[in-house]
Amino acid sequence: MKIGNVYRMPRWAKWIVGLLFLPIVLQAQEVDMLSDTVSELSTGLNTVWMLLAAMLVFFMQPGFALVEAGFTRTKNTANILMKNLVDFMFGSLLYWFIGFGLMFGLGSFVGQPHFFNLEMMDAVIDNGLPIEGFLIFQTVFCATSATIVSGAMAERTKFSMYLLYTIFISVLIYPVSGHWTWGGGWLMNGEEGSFMMNLFGTPFHDFAGSAVVHSVGGWIALVGAAILGPRLGKYGKDGKSKAIPGHSLTLACLGVFILWFGWFGFNPGSQLAASTGTDQAAISHVFLTTNLSACAGGFLALVVSWFKFGKPSLSLTLNGVLAGLVGVTAGCDLVSPAGAVLIGAICGTVMIYAVEFIDHTLKIDDPVGASSVHGVCGSLGTILTGFLSVDGGLLYGGGFGFLGAQVFGALVIGLWAAGMGFVIFKVMDVVFGLRVTKRVEEEGLDVYEHGESAYNS
Amino acid sequence: MKIGNVYRMPRWAKWIVGLLFLPIVLQAQEVDMLSDTVSELSTGLNTVWMLLAAMLVFFMQPGFALVEAGFTRTKNTANILMKNLVDFMFGSLLYWFIGFGLMFGLGSFVGQPHFFNLEMMDAVIDNGLPIEGFLIFQTVFCATSATIVSGAMAERTKFSMYLLYTIFISVLIYPVSGHWTWGGGWLMNGEEGSFMMNLFGTPFHDFAGSAVVHSVGGWIALVGAAILGPRLGKYGKDGKSKAIPGHSLTLACLGVFILWFGWFGFNPGSQLAASTGTDQAAISHVFLTTNLSACAGGFLALVVSWFKFGKPSLSLTLNGVLAGLVGVTAGCDLVSPAGAVLIGAICGTVMIYAVEFIDHTLKIDDPVGASSVHGVCGSLGTILTGFLSVDGGLLYGGGFGFLGAQVFGALVIGLWAAGMGFVIFKVMDVVFGLRVTKRVEEEGLDVYEHGESAYNS
Amino acid sequence: MKIGNVYRMPRWAKWIVGLLFLPIVLQAQEVDMLSDTVSELSTGLNTVWMLLAAMLVFFMQPGFALVEAGFTRTKNTANILMKNLVDFMFGSLLYWFIGFGLMFGLGSFVGQPHFFNLEMMDAVIDNGLPIEGFLIFQTVFCATSATIVSGAMAERTKFSMYLLYTIFISVLIYPVSGHWTWGGGWLMNGEEGSFMMNLFGTPFHDFAGSAVVHSVGGWIALVGAAILGPRLGKYGKDGKSKAIPGHSLTLACLGVFILWFGWFGFNPGSQLAASTGTDQAAISHVFLTTNLSACAGGFLALVVSWFKFGKPSLSLTLNGVLAGLVGVTAGCDLVSPAGAVLIGAICGTVMIYAVEFIDHTLKIDDPVGASSVHGVCGSLGTILTGFLSVDGGLLYGGGFGFLGAQVFGALVIGLWAAGMGFVIFKVMDVVFGLRVTKRVEEEGLDVYEHGESAYNS
Repeated sequence: MKIGNVYRMPRWAKWIVGLLFLPIVLQAQEVDMLSDTVSELSTGLNTVWMLLAAMLVFFMQPGFALVEAGFTRTKNTANILMKNLVDFMFGSLLYWFIGFGLMFGLGSFVGQPHFFNLEMMDAVIDNGLPIEGFLIFQTVFCATSATIVSGAMAERTKFSMYLLYTIFISVLIYPVSGHWTWGGGWLMNGEEGSFMMNLFGTPFHDFAGSAVVHSVGGWIALVGAAILGPRLGKYGKDGKSKAIPGHSLTLACLGVFILWFGWFGFNPGSQLAASTGTDQAAISHVFLTTNLSACAGGFLALVVSWFKFGKPSLSLTLNGVLAGLVGVTAGCDLVSPAGAVLIGAICGTVMIYAVEFIDHTLKIDDPVGASSVHGVCGSLGTILTGFLSVDGGLLYGGGFGFLGAQVFGALVIGLWAAGMGFVIFKVMDVVFGLRVTKRVEEEGLDVYEHGESAYNS
Repeated sequence: MKIGNVYRMPRWAKWIVGLLFLPIVLQAQEVDMLSDTVSELSTGLNTVWMLLAAMLVFFMQPGFALVEAGFTRTKNTANILMKNLVDFMFGSLLYWFIGFGLMFGLGSFVGQPHFFNLEMMDAVIDNGLPIEGFLIFQTVFCATSATIVSGAMAERTKFSMYLLYTIFISVLIYPVSGHWTWGGGWLMNGEEGSFMMNLFGTPFHDFAGSAVVHSVGGWIALVGAAILGPRLGKYGKDGKSKAIPGHSLTLACLGVFILWFGWFGFNPGSQLAASTGTDQAAISHVFLTTNLSACAGGFLALVVSWFKFGKPSLSLTLNGVLAGLVGVTAGCDLVSPAGAVLIGAICGTVMIYAVEFIDHTLKIDDPVGASSVHGVCGSLGTILTGFLSVDGGLLYGGGFGFLGAQVFGALVIGLWAAGMGFVIFKVMDVVFGLRVTKRVEEEGLDVYEHGESAYNS
Repeated sequence: MKIGNVYRMPRWAKWIVGLLFLPIVLQAQEVDMLSDTVSELSTGLNTVWMLLAAMLVFFMQPGFALVEAGFTRTKNTANILMKNLVDFMFGSLLYWFIGFGLMFGLGSFVGQPHFFNLEMMDAVIDNGLPIEGFLIFQTVFCATSATIVSGAMAERTKFSMYLLYTIFISVLIYPVSGHWTWGGGWLMNGEEGSFMMNLFGTPFHDFAGSAVVHSVGGWIALVGAAILGPRLGKYGKDGKSKAIPGHSLTLACLGVFILWFGWFGFNPGSQLAASTGTDQAAISHVFLTTNLSACAGGFLALVVSWFKFGKPSLSLTLNGVLAGLVGVTAGCDLVSPAGAVLIGAICGTVMIYAVEFIDHTLKIDDPVGASSVHGVCGSLGTILTGFLSVDGGLLYGGGFGFLGAQVFGALVIGLWAAGMGFVIFKVMDVVFGLRVTKRVEEEGLDVYEHGESAYNS
């Protein structure tokens, strides 16, 4: 373009400009490609972290199986193991088939079922992670909730009834309250004008599932054990509770250690990411608070059992560790390490009194203490987060808004689980009968229900 | 360069050009370095994924040990545990020493031995992963194959004979068929004009080792158990098979859960990478299909055992889970989730009939069902991939080429393993005698072979 | 700037320069941001690797619990399990509270306590990893050291005394020698003019803790067992040692497999990084040497026990695996795979003679062989690194400097642990009495100390 002599660019200059821009353009392309590679790699690290967590949470299944087997009697061991297998198998198949959609699909009360159409879910869930990996991650959480129930109802429930109610947990109770919370539903909706914002000024918070997973399992367990009635011989003619010791504390202890190990997937894994500095600080923090709460829970249960019963009890210490783990799961991201120790200490202590209250006062027979550990401490830990969160907790000057949201959320979820559990178990009991006959219970479910003894010479 | 006045570049222009290029050049260097860092980091993620998988597959060793111990009797427990230890120790040392080279070295029928010269292997194997890490990964797969055999030959094989034949598996049977497949050999050679391409138009496919690892172990196990003969008292005078229950279903169940957990390294880990989006989708997919098949296998075994024997059997459900896992291992990358459920369901069902056929009809005494679970379902899963692969499977309109390749591969590998097993066991039996004396078998191998009882007060 | 006509830049040229620089500047910013992202991602991979390792090392706790329970008697099982729980709970709380600072804080003999002020530690420790993640990683190492002791003192120590001495290990013995080594103290100080450089020309080397973790635990264990005296009935009137078999080799075997699995976190994890090619080669190498040494240790123990006692012993093979693992831990990064096999073979062999020497000659009753496995082989492996390191080892022409440093370091750490252990146990024994009464020991600690039996029907 000739605008005048001054503005005329000589030919050599055009060459220079061209040659100069070429490397810039090429390099810009290279940088863009590199940027894509880095972004992909970042997703890769997050995916590996999520899948590692999924593996560990899966591994909690034998943890539960061993705890429940160890705390119950030899004659019912094959039965309790079978139940733990079945709820995972059913849970995996049903959650893939329908539960995943009910929990994460679009919808207000409950998500739209996807009927194993994962592409449909991929369009809805936008977290950058492979949809099939995310499904696996969510599946193992659902299975954790379902597996809690078998312990409380051990040694007297028909196997066929177990098959039936584990379906209701996997496709109804868990996914619905899961939808209200992690599925983008009303309890965790933090948008301006939402129900929780209007009422409390903040949404409900449950990082990894004290309420969403554990209390759901725990409250269903309590209702189930109540409807079933106590095991034969559990309460004497005078109404006094008699201890029925489990057949192997070694199994129970191994189970607790496995659960503890798995919890390092459950809680730190729930960050679902490790690529940014924020993620790395978060997963490290959650790892630390989770472990400290477990330790404080176990230690306090040890001390309290020592004071209360004259001797430090292994069974109660084991349940104390679990109480600490369950309790810290809601707020492991928000409480300080010292706050985590406090949560663990409170849960470990309360658990012992809860076990006693349920056993002696309510006269509900929960052979493994699942309702105290998962129900009571699940709700309690959720509420304690309202006190101890460094961001909005009452003791950190956050006022009553967040605490209110936590109490409300724990209550709503607990009532949903217990209420639905009540309806389902009651109907099943009336229609089919939940409980095995007296003879089967006396001689053991293993031989009658499965034709096998767990132990032989 | 003076070509004329127009082309003469003024001095200031030279300065500009120089100053302009300098940042471009510096930045290009920076981008190159960054690109190298990213590439290194990408390998880092893949290495971590591979080593995590190697850990998990290693952990399958106690899984096998517990399953085999649980399904056999108290008096032979120390012996079966010892065997599981020994095959891993031998396998690790021998595979490092020679097996790795035989499998992955250059060569047609078998690779060139490397005699622990890993640099030689590094020159041959070009997957970008650290050679020592890749060796460990391959070592734990080899050990898996070897450890399968001990279960089928439990409770009656001399310990010294076990030491001997486990050597042959680790340095001969496994590496040779491994060379044909994963070692770049003829069965998986997809180059134009190769044997498989000429015959079927596609190479054989075995993603993580239904055939290469499990069926090899399983078919050696069957031949070994046949040559050994049944345990004393297994078949009555009327020829009827009698069940000899194992001493602890709790151990067996824990073992199966550990194996299941380890399989999440075995299958998703076999992708050997997690850095690209394709890898992430693949490992997520494989994780999902692996788990669904396990669940379907266990569930179908539960249902079939219920219909067939009147009660849902824990032992068979446990083997059903393993059947599903073994079956899906070949095609976990190629089948859809629904396809994986189908493979699991078929394998879980067929396993029960295979156990019965081998036990009642062939009258081969396999105490833990290893030949049915790993042999039958390993080959079956490999073949089913030919039907159900979404890419080339018969049911997806792929024609008979791929199915043919799968049937052919499963057959060739099965015949190789069974044939070599037959020769080795037969020679060992004639020369040394495979079996302990009647008295040792009656009183238990623990005391006679190892001078210890597994259980004391 | 007008310097003359030749140097005057025309207006169009100014525009070009501006337009040219703009993309360069923008791109430079983009590259800088990308570089930060990559650096963050790199830390992310290292953090994930470290936390994975921490999980695995945590999981060694049930490994130790099962080994110790398996090698002791039924009547003391709940007690030994409880001890293993307690030392981890105490260790986690105390190390977070004070031990971490004593080990890694500033200071010469010992670090400045931080009293759970992690920000203070973050300012001191500069490894780029999240401080809370690093704390967890170090916590599980501390707990490993503490948990070793319970096995040697099993079946006769008061539970209350265990609570007390485990505190001293976690807040005094372990952190102080830990400070000398990994805490930047004098034993590993490689600066010009430092004590070790002056004396040996090289600092002491202990990659993952043969000396720092295992020998500390092992030598405390030996001293404790000596001061306690043998179990009732361990030595006959003629002074001859009698074997007191443990109650379950199955548990012991599972425990060893779990420890082996956990060691893949313990050793490869101690690299604390996986992002660079050097890291990837290192963690792969360490994984390989760790596994080979374990295999060689187990195999040699099998062979030696066979020659020595006429039968290959499962108990000794299990301890041989542990001996190999403990032995290679100091030099797993510096020895070749063949060197690792040699270390394992030597440790597996020496362990058997050490067990015999301690049991028969010293007449110290160590029920699980912890002092031989962790004390003897921990120190031995540290010293063998001085022979077999490919960089500075005596057999690789490195002269006596490095060997001297290793012998000196092993000695200093061993004397510190044994000496402090002696003082603490002696004082405790005189003041409170370490040992339970004869009746409690005879009838079992479970019922008397904890009011529970581990096993029931």
